Amino acid sequence: MVERTEEQHKAKMQKKQAAHDKIIAGKTVEKGLLVVHTGKGKGKTTAALGMVVRAIGHGKKVGIVQFVKGAMTTGEKVVFDAFPDQVEFKAMGEGFTWNTQDRTRDIALAREAWEEVKRMIADPAYAMVLADELNIVLRYDYLPLDEVIAVLAARPDMKHVIVTGRNAPEALIEQADLATEMTLLKHPFREQGVKAQPGIEF
Amino acid sequence: MVERTEEQHKAKMQKKQAAHDKIIAGKTVEKGLLVVHTGKGKGKTTAALGMVVRAIGHGKKVGIVQFVKGAMTTGEKVVFDAFPDQVEFKAMGEGFTWNTQDRTRDIALAREAWEEVKRMIADPAYAMVLADELNIVLRYDYLPLDEVIAVLAARPDMKHVIVTGRNAPEALIEQADLATEMTLLKHPFREQGVKAQPGIEF
Repeated sequence: MVERTEEQHKAKMQKKQAAHDKIIAGKTVEKGLLVVHTGKGKGKTTAALGMVVRAIGHGKKVGIVQFVKGAMTTGEKVVFDAFPDQVEFKAMGEGFTWNTQDRTRDIALAREAWEEVKRMIADPAYAMVLADELNIVLRYDYLPLDEVIAVLAARPDMKHVIVTGRNAPEALIEQADLATEMTLLKHPFREQGVKAQPGIEF
Repeated sequence: MVERTEEQHKAKMQKKQAAHDKIIAGKTVEKGLLVVHTGKGKGKTTAALGMVVRAIGHGKKVGIVQFVKGAMTTGEKVVFDAFPDQVEFKAMGEGFTWNTQDRTRDIALAREAWEEVKRMIADPAYAMVLADELNIVLRYDYLPLDEVIAVLAARPDMKHVIVTGRNAPEALIEQADLATEMTLLKHPFREQGVKAQPGIEF
């Protein structure tokens, strides 16, 4: 613990505030962001859901396309259902890819999901589009990376797009305005045999 | 791109599924988790909000105490207001600490907020408690770390507690069931002069 007098504390905080104000004053650009959540840790989809909630709260419309998880029967669905005019949810993937064991079918489903993302990006009604687990699909080469990057790069000016999933391709991170890596520091599944629980995992 | 035949793909996916099923079968413990989101990247609070949304969707009651941010006038508030019986929100901090420049007052506010967290942890009505930016308060030594760790360690069996903020103390990570570090890979604020935008930052 660092001991400081009230006076020292105040001086330090004033300096911090001045630096903070200066940074904020230099930020004047408004634009739709390409946001990428990647890494092996938890929180990639969950943080995207948090952003969706914020956008809903600001009266915006959000499109969500889930690429590889099963139909949404989970917590967030109930909350989104309370704002039916503001959330369009498409669960395109049928379970994780290793459940289908049919590559041709997986590729067709990935294409179908991607066409939904493209439609939502093109449609001005959507302020935000979440392409959940798109990175997984790219990792398996189920969609051409070049096409995905080109569509994201050419998105309308004020459109926010969030892409989640581990192993984000380097080219996607390059293109991103904001990229965050979630890293596991400690995990109860591996270490304690704890199962997935409502409110935490789904 | 790795070229595989349909047969090779199917075999690989079957192997993955078997491994996955084995892991899931070994997970039988149900318990309240202490979850920590830390690191300098974005998504710490946002991912916690996503968990709150999931818990609400499962009909659970969540208590939220914000330690250092200003009163909530942001996106998530609108969504939480749609579930008034399930979310209790306490915004205890008054702006960031460097805005107040009064250490004694900050410590008193931190104490007040912590007492709310303790109350929610003790009250069986709450399935989940979010102590947002508690790590910041601990970083400034506004609360005794020993007391915080002791309360968290002694929480009721099925109570989920989420603690967010950069610079999580090592002792807190030790205590956590799930700890995730959010790391900045790319950030539009620094690199592009982009200002905070609704749906993304608040």
